[in-house]
Amino acid sequence: MRVGIDAMGGDSAPAVEVKGAVAARQFLGPQDRIVLVGREDAIRRQLSGTKDPQGHIDVVHADQAVGMDEAPVEALRGKPRSSLAVMVQMHARGELDACISCGNTGAFVAAAQMRLRRLSGVHRPGIAVISPTLHGPVALCDVGANVNCRPQHLHQYGVMASVYMRSICGINRPRVGLLNVGAEEAKGNDLVKRTHELFRKDPHTNFIGNVEGRDLFGGVCDVVVCEGFVGNVMLKLIEGMANGLVQALLSVLNRQMPGATDAIEKAGQAIAARYDYNEYGGAPLLGVNGICIICHGASDYRGVMNAVRAAREYATCQANQQITALLAGRDEG
Amino acid sequence: MRVGIDAMGGDSAPAVEVKGAVAARQFLGPQDRIVLVGREDAIRRQLSGTKDPQGHIDVVHADQAVGMDEAPVEALRGKPRSSLAVMVQMHARGELDACISCGNTGAFVAAAQMRLRRLSGVHRPGIAVISPTLHGPVALCDVGANVNCRPQHLHQYGVMASVYMRSICGINRPRVGLLNVGAEEAKGNDLVKRTHELFRKDPHTNFIGNVEGRDLFGGVCDVVVCEGFVGNVMLKLIEGMANGLVQALLSVLNRQMPGATDAIEKAGQAIAARYDYNEYGGAPLLGVNGICIICHGASDYRGVMNAVRAAREYATCQANQQITALLAGRDEG
Repeated sequence: MRVGIDAMGGDSAPAVEVKGAVAARQFLGPQDRIVLVGREDAIRRQLSGTKDPQGHIDVVHADQAVGMDEAPVEALRGKPRSSLAVMVQMHARGELDACISCGNTGAFVAAAQMRLRRLSGVHRPGIAVISPTLHGPVALCDVGANVNCRPQHLHQYGVMASVYMRSICGINRPRVGLLNVGAEEAKGNDLVKRTHELFRKDPHTNFIGNVEGRDLFGGVCDVVVCEGFVGNVMLKLIEGMANGLVQALLSVLNRQMPGATDAIEKAGQAIAARYDYNEYGGAPLLGVNGICIICHGASDYRGVMNAVRAAREYATCQANQQITALLAGRDEG
Repeated sequence: MRVGIDAMGGDSAPAVEVKGAVAARQFLGPQDRIVLVGREDAIRRQLSGTKDPQGHIDVVHADQAVGMDEAPVEALRGKPRSSLAVMVQMHARGELDACISCGNTGAFVAAAQMRLRRLSGVHRPGIAVISPTLHGPVALCDVGANVNCRPQHLHQYGVMASVYMRSICGINRPRVGLLNVGAEEAKGNDLVKRTHELFRKDPHTNFIGNVEGRDLFGGVCDVVVCEGFVGNVMLKLIEGMANGLVQALLSVLNRQMPGATDAIEKAGQAIAARYDYNEYGGAPLLGVNGICIICHGASDYRGVMNAVRAAREYATCQANQQITALLAGRDEG
């Protein structure tokens, strides 16, 4: 397969993207290729000195780049030769089998929707983030592709994220929870109440009912369905809180045990590693007719490397074919 | 002043409520009274043996109790003699100056709206929770009083929570942030975009623009405005994550430093104390024509005791008069 990487996307582009591409060759077969899309001179400079004996890595030039804070649709319209736009166009034309970007998430989602279109039967694509917990990985979907949700969208997030968790994480019948303000069926706003009904009527999804914010880390479900606004807020809250809380705890410990600085630092690193998004290979955009893996803007090379692995697994397990089989032709408005 | 406490509300009622009432006498003047509302025999049993030399504590009998998981409006309708309903009715009749409950939050909010009514100019009451952070306290409003928000509601949450933070926490011009999925003005759903406009047009509020989930702990603002669904999810996520993360870190440390169990445990307790909701005296329901302090269902006696202190401070600083002065007569639909 041919995996495209937007080499100009992340906070440390293109260094991180190139290093990640080189490291990712371990996951590729002899016929596979990685295509770095972006400013060719900058990419070649990063590549020089690295060994690519089997010629795994190609470079496609694109002289524009979408900034992290640009308005998505305007950026795509104004920069048709951006690395992101060129990469997604190549995927749409069949010249790539998957795309990876650490750049502007909104622009990536918009480009994917415009160029790749949706899978048959899918109303809206959603981003699924895998969050590590003490009880195993939990998928949170959507975390920001769609901030004006209808019940059908939320229901489909549950269906699609279940396919992902079963295929990629090997969880047999993923337990799907609907994020709400209480466990009781009657709780919540209109959106979740109507979504609840859709899940109740769906015999194919292992729906366990409402879950609350605290349940995300409680091991009660494998998939948490929510609309993109809430999911995005939660994701960033987790990130901010993990940093803040670990730092607070370490500073208290350092005061109490001045001789144990090394051990405390190691423990902090061990926890940080457990919650490290770089280990999880990015978040798939579920529901588009293609494979799009969204990485954190601050990813290091391991984030990019593991995104290549995720793209390969996504293709191997035929997640999109499974989603289409479940959703195409279903009539739920 | 006369402060009512729903003695049948919390997870450990009435023991926690009675112990909290006894401990709270330190915050009261000679003319002040605490009124415990609930099953008189159970309350008297808890009170027996405690000393109340100045007769600070009265008991009002109510033979029904609203359960934690009951549907609010149905519970109030079906149990007119519940401790919660009786307490709020007494407040509405002027026999109490404030109410405190560790019980069913939805029922407390519903009872307050029905019996106390809203302050002049207020569209919807909102619950403000004070969250401790490394950079000082931050108010999050609303955390679940209202899960079908309009922009006017969100704007008023900012106004009311600012009054609270200024009056109770002594923050001069509280910085108000609007919770969103990105810092840029154009981000977010229709609700937050329209709310953003209302804040921009309001010269009385120190609005700093959009904030993200991670900013809650970053010291960038003193008030975070959000609709009740998102706020409730965040609040419970913080609770679940704090427990999970501290436990994870402590277990790693214990493995690495088997000899330091005591010091590690103390550090854990120090962090837990910093994030202990019992220290913060409950969450005020802002916008009702009365003083309603909502405590966590799992509060211990300190939670109840500090809620009495909070109720007294709320009355002393005349927060409701300030809110009315800011909102009454304003025309924003």
